[in-house]
Amino acid sequence: MTKGTTPEAIAVNGGNAMDAISPHEGIQAGRLWSRLMGLAEYGAIDGDSAKGVNRQALSDEDAAAWQYMIALCEGSRLEVETDALGNLFIIAPGRDRSLPPVLLGSHLDSQPTGGRFDGAYGVLCALEVLLEREERGLRENKPATAAVHERDLIAVAWMNEEGSRFAPGMMGSMGFAGKMTVEDIRAVRDASGVSVGEALDRHLAAFAHLPRRPVGFPIAAYLELHIEQGPVLEANDNLIGVVTGIQGKQTWTVDVTGEAGHSGTLAMRERRDAVTAFARIAAALDAELGTEDDVVKFTIGRAVVTPNAPSVVAERVVFSIDLRHPDNAVLTRLGNRIEAICHAHASPCSVVATNIVNAPSNDFDAELQALISAAAARFGYRAMPILSAAGHDARYMAPLAPSAMIFIPCKEGISHNPAEWSTPEQVAAGGNVLYATLEALVAIERTFP
Amino acid sequence: MTKGTTPEAIAVNGGNAMDAISPHEGIQAGRLWSRLMGLAEYGAIDGDSAKGVNRQALSDEDAAAWQYMIALCEGSRLEVETDALGNLFIIAPGRDRSLPPVLLGSHLDSQPTGGRFDGAYGVLCALEVLLEREERGLRENKPATAAVHERDLIAVAWMNEEGSRFAPGMMGSMGFAGKMTVEDIRAVRDASGVSVGEALDRHLAAFAHLPRRPVGFPIAAYLELHIEQGPVLEANDNLIGVVTGIQGKQTWTVDVTGEAGHSGTLAMRERRDAVTAFARIAAALDAELGTEDDVVKFTIGRAVVTPNAPSVVAERVVFSIDLRHPDNAVLTRLGNRIEAICHAHASPCSVVATNIVNAPSNDFDAELQALISAAAARFGYRAMPILSAAGHDARYMAPLAPSAMIFIPCKEGISHNPAEWSTPEQVAAGGNVLYATLEALVAIERTFP
Repeated sequence: MTKGTTPEAIAVNGGNAMDAISPHEGIQAGRLWSRLMGLAEYGAIDGDSAKGVNRQALSDEDAAAWQYMIALCEGSRLEVETDALGNLFIIAPGRDRSLPPVLLGSHLDSQPTGGRFDGAYGVLCALEVLLEREERGLRENKPATAAVHERDLIAVAWMNEEGSRFAPGMMGSMGFAGKMTVEDIRAVRDASGVSVGEALDRHLAAFAHLPRRPVGFPIAAYLELHIEQGPVLEANDNLIGVVTGIQGKQTWTVDVTGEAGHSGTLAMRERRDAVTAFARIAAALDAELGTEDDVVKFTIGRAVVTPNAPSVVAERVVFSIDLRHPDNAVLTRLGNRIEAICHAHASPCSVVATNIVNAPSNDFDAELQALISAAAARFGYRAMPILSAAGHDARYMAPLAPSAMIFIPCKEGISHNPAEWSTPEQVAAGGNVLYATLEALVAIERTFP
Repeated sequence: MTKGTTPEAIAVNGGNAMDAISPHEGIQAGRLWSRLMGLAEYGAIDGDSAKGVNRQALSDEDAAAWQYMIALCEGSRLEVETDALGNLFIIAPGRDRSLPPVLLGSHLDSQPTGGRFDGAYGVLCALEVLLEREERGLRENKPATAAVHERDLIAVAWMNEEGSRFAPGMMGSMGFAGKMTVEDIRAVRDASGVSVGEALDRHLAAFAHLPRRPVGFPIAAYLELHIEQGPVLEANDNLIGVVTGIQGKQTWTVDVTGEAGHSGTLAMRERRDAVTAFARIAAALDAELGTEDDVVKFTIGRAVVTPNAPSVVAERVVFSIDLRHPDNAVLTRLGNRIEAICHAHASPCSVVATNIVNAPSNDFDAELQALISAAAARFGYRAMPILSAAGHDARYMAPLAPSAMIFIPCKEGISHNPAEWSTPEQVAAGGNVLYATLEALVAIERTFP
C-alpha cells in the first residue's frame, strides 16, 4: 500500500492536535485482526466464515456476538450497558460522567449472506481503541482508577443496521435519534411474523444483568469506522477515506394485489396476475430510474410472491425499492416518480407504494474530517475525501452532534457478499486513524456541548 | 339446475348398457357430501376449510387424509394397499383377480391455498361408488363374499397431483405410467430441502401395515371425476361435462444467475442484477406468449429470489413457467420460443431454461365418452363435451388403457382458491354418472385387455 501525501490527498489540518500522538502509537493490530476473525464465527455459514456470515439482528447468532464482545471486556474497567432498543454500549468512564459522551462504533448484525467486515469491524475497532487507551495508561504506570479523559468514551453497536430481517435498517440509531418511535420499531415484523418487540424482549432477557440507559441520551460527538463497500479507495490506491457525507436514500415497499386462479383454466383476459404486473413495474422502474446518470442506484432486492405455486396465478407480490443518489434534488425528483410508474404498469392489478425511509444526503462535520485527515497523515497513510454510497448509522448521529466516518478499502468494492475482504494492513490502518482521531478529540476537548 | 337433453347435449350412445341401471339407483349423496366436508378438515386453514385447504403432498395433513379414507373402509370388504410412490389403492376384489383392474379416482393433495373439491371429490366419489356397489349387494341379499364384478375395481388417490410442494405435479400417475423413474421422483426436493424420497419414506412408514403393489401394474380402464375448474359448464348451464381430452401443457424451470452486491455502492453499469433480468424476461414472455390467441394460458406462478434482502442486489431468481394450449402445434411452437426469449432479456445475467414437463393434448377414449353421455342422459342431466383446460392424472392413464373424465361445474370457474365451490346437487350428479358409467362398464365387460 502506497504511503505518503499526494496531490489528491487531503491537506493536513488540525496538525497541532496530532502532536500528542507518536506514529509508533496506535492499536494492537494483531489482536484486532484475530478478534475480527473470531467474531465472524458467530453466524458463519456452514461453520466457515469464508462462506459468508448470517448474523441477522436479534437472532441467536447476534446474541452470541454480544456475549463475545462482553467477554472481551472482562478484566478491564470498561462497563457494559444496553437500552430498550437493544443497542449495546461499552463505556470507558470519564472524570466527569455528567458530560455528554463521545460515541464511536457501528453494528454487529449482518446480511443473510454477508461478509466478515461490514459493521463488525467498526465495533471491534471502537472497543480496541478503548482497551488500548486503558492499557497504555497501565503500561505508563498511571493508576488504573485515574481515567485519562474528561468525558465518557463509548463503543456502541447499533441494533439492526442491515434491515434484512426487520425493515427498515438502522433501527437502533434511528430510534436513538428519535426518528422512529420505540413503539413503531417494536411493531415491525419479520417474514415469519415475529415482531421486533418479541425478538427484543427475548434478546434483552438474555442480558437482563446489563444496566439500561435511556433511549437517546445527549452525545458530544460520533465517529464510525467502516469498510468502503465500493471500489473508489482501491481504484485510487488510497488507504483511508475521509467521508464527506452519505448519499441520499429512499426506501419503499410496494404491494401489488391481483387474484389467485388456476393456471390452466383462467383465461388470460380475465386474469389479475400479480407476478406479470410486478414484472412490468420492475422493468419500467429499472429502465426509467436506474438509467438517470452514472451515480444513481436503483435496487429491487426483495420480492415475495403469494401463494408462489407453479400452477396458481399469483394473487400478490410485495417488493422493496432501494433508491439512492448523492444529489438530494435528483433523489426527490426520482422518488416522486415511483408511484406513477407503479400505477402505469399495474393494471389490472392494484398497487400501493409506501415510502418507508426518506433520508437526504448529509454533510459530516468539517472539523472532524480535518482531524481524520491529520491522523492519516500522521501515520503516513494516503487518504482522500469520499462520499459514502452506502447508508450508515452515522446518518442519524449527524443531526445530534459533530459526526464523521473513516473508510478503509475493500477488495473490488465487494460487500454484502461472502467475498467481502480487506487486508490486515488496511484493517490496522483504519484502527490507527480511529485511535489517533479520538486521541486528538480528547486532547483538544473541542467545542463539545 | 336444468335437466333434459338439448341441441348442445351429446347424443345418447351405449344406451343398451344403461338398461341395467334404474334412474333411482346411484350413490348416497348425503353421505358423500358430509364426507367431502369432513375430508376438507384435514389441512383446513385456520381450522376453517371455508378459508381454504392446505394439504400438500406427503405432509402430515396428507397422511391424516389417508387415515380418514382408510377409516371409511372399515367394516367393508374393501382392501387398502399402496405402492413405492405413495399412491393409495382401495380395492373391491373381483371374481378373477388375475385380470387387469378398472381404476377410478383422482388425488388427495391440495394447493397451499386450495379449496375443498379439487381432487378430493374424485377420490371420495370413487370410494362412494365402490361402497354403494357392495352395500347394494348386501341389501339385495347376495352373499357378501360373492363379488358382483369380474375384475378388481380400484379407487385410487395419486400422489402429488398439484406439484406445489414438489414439482412437477402428477408424480404418482407419471411414475405409475413409467414417464418418470422412481429414482428421479425421489430426488426432487421442496423449498426447504426435503426430498420426495425422505418425505415418502416418512409417509409410508406411517402406513407400513399396508401391502405394497408393484409400481405400474396393467389396468383395464380409468375413470376420473373432477370439478371443471373453469367457467364453461356453468356458462352453458350444463350439469355434466363429458371430457374429450386435456389441453397440452409444458412446464419449465428458469434459473437466472447474477451476482450479489451492495445496493448503495455497486454502480448500475457493473451490476448483474437477477431481479431486473427476471422482470424483463417475465414481462417479455408474458407479452409474447400470453397474447397468442384467446385460449393460450401462460403463467409464472412461482419466483424465488436469493438472498431476497432489500439492500442486496439479487444474485439469483428461479421461476416456473406453466404454458398450455389445446393445439399441440401451437404449444410446441410457443414452447420452442421460451429459451430464446429468456436469453434475449437476461444480459448481463446468465439464464438456463429447463423443460420439466412436455405433455401434448390427448383425446380420451370415445367409447367411454359415449358411456358417460348415456349415464348422464339416464339421470336426465344436461351434458356437453368439454376439453379440460387443467391437467389431470388421467393424462398419464390414457396411453395405458381406455380412459375418460367426468366434470361437474364449479362456481364462476374458480379453483386453486379457497372460494372453490360446487353445490350438493352438482356433487351428487357427478357421483351418479360415475356410478352408472362403472355399472355399464361392469355390465358390458367391453374389450378389456
